[in-house]
Amino acid sequence: MASDPDCPFCRKLADPAGWAAEDVVWEFPHSVAVLGPWQFYTGYCVLVCREHATELHHLDGSTRVAYLKEMATLAEAIGGCFRPHKLNYELLGNQVPHLHWHLFPRSIDDPDRLRPVWFALEKADADPAEKTRLETARAHRTMIAALLRERLRADKAPGEPATP
Amino acid sequence: MASDPDCPFCRKLADPAGWAAEDVVWEFPHSVAVLGPWQFYTGYCVLVCREHATELHHLDGSTRVAYLKEMATLAEAIGGCFRPHKLNYELLGNQVPHLHWHLFPRSIDDPDRLRPVWFALEKADADPAEKTRLETARAHRTMIAALLRERLRADKAPGEPATP
Repeated sequence: MASDPDCPFCRKLADPAGWAAEDVVWEFPHSVAVLGPWQFYTGYCVLVCREHATELHHLDGSTRVAYLKEMATLAEAIGGCFRPHKLNYELLGNQVPHLHWHLFPRSIDDPDRLRPVWFALEKADADPAEKTRLETARAHRTMIAALLRERLRADKAPGEPATP
Repeated sequence: MASDPDCPFCRKLADPAGWAAEDVVWEFPHSVAVLGPWQFYTGYCVLVCREHATELHHLDGSTRVAYLKEMATLAEAIGGCFRPHKLNYELLGNQVPHLHWHLFPRSIDDPDRLRPVWFALEKADADPAEKTRLETARAHRTMIAALLRERLRADKAPGEPATP
């Protein structure tokens, strides 16, 4: 499986302590679901492909189908757990060109809900109070991750839960 | 197939003149690929699901798999035609909650390439010169659409080209 020693995601994937254990939500066969930092968007996850590829069409056909299916499975679990007004699915890779989905649940009471999250996140990068606000979940992070794991287990998601 | 008379995409899908014929790139079985307005991002397309659904997991399993495959097929064609530095795949629906992928090819010579396109597009909304800049393609729009159709035909994409 392709890997790139200079890629931060490849290094995390290769390192058993790459992500804090409590942040790893699910070990899918083709990807790892990690609870993201911005839990103002309750349930926000990043789904990192196990293979180093910069574009979906660089994956072989069956891996691509499986990775997209894992994305949809995780999205469904986030939707089922937290009932967001809308989910935002984004695969950008402008800064780290290793396939990873951002799954951002959007809330009806977010005054900025009509815009992509990036405006709020850029503001947070320059404003510590805003950063704290957007990093702070309505529930404990460990509870959010546990709810997602429980849901994925009930949905018989392929792979297995992380065991923090 | 689910449709919502109040949804702008459902209305366009139901209307043979919903999109300018020359902008319709490909009629996939489960979606329509339309050349987007911001052709500074050469090859930018929007892929509108034929069915009215707000989330991927609201589609039935086989439709979802097919729609995601069509997204990857279109992305590969954009990549093959225009060789972007990176593709950005975004399914948001914050303003129009009917499944549609934005596929934005990013160029290495875009000084803003490390950021999502939305910052530039929001600026363009308030600045006519910037709007013109981001709407203006390096090639004619008709040529861009024709190249994509040719590529999708060569790739034996399911469905058929639009015939402007």
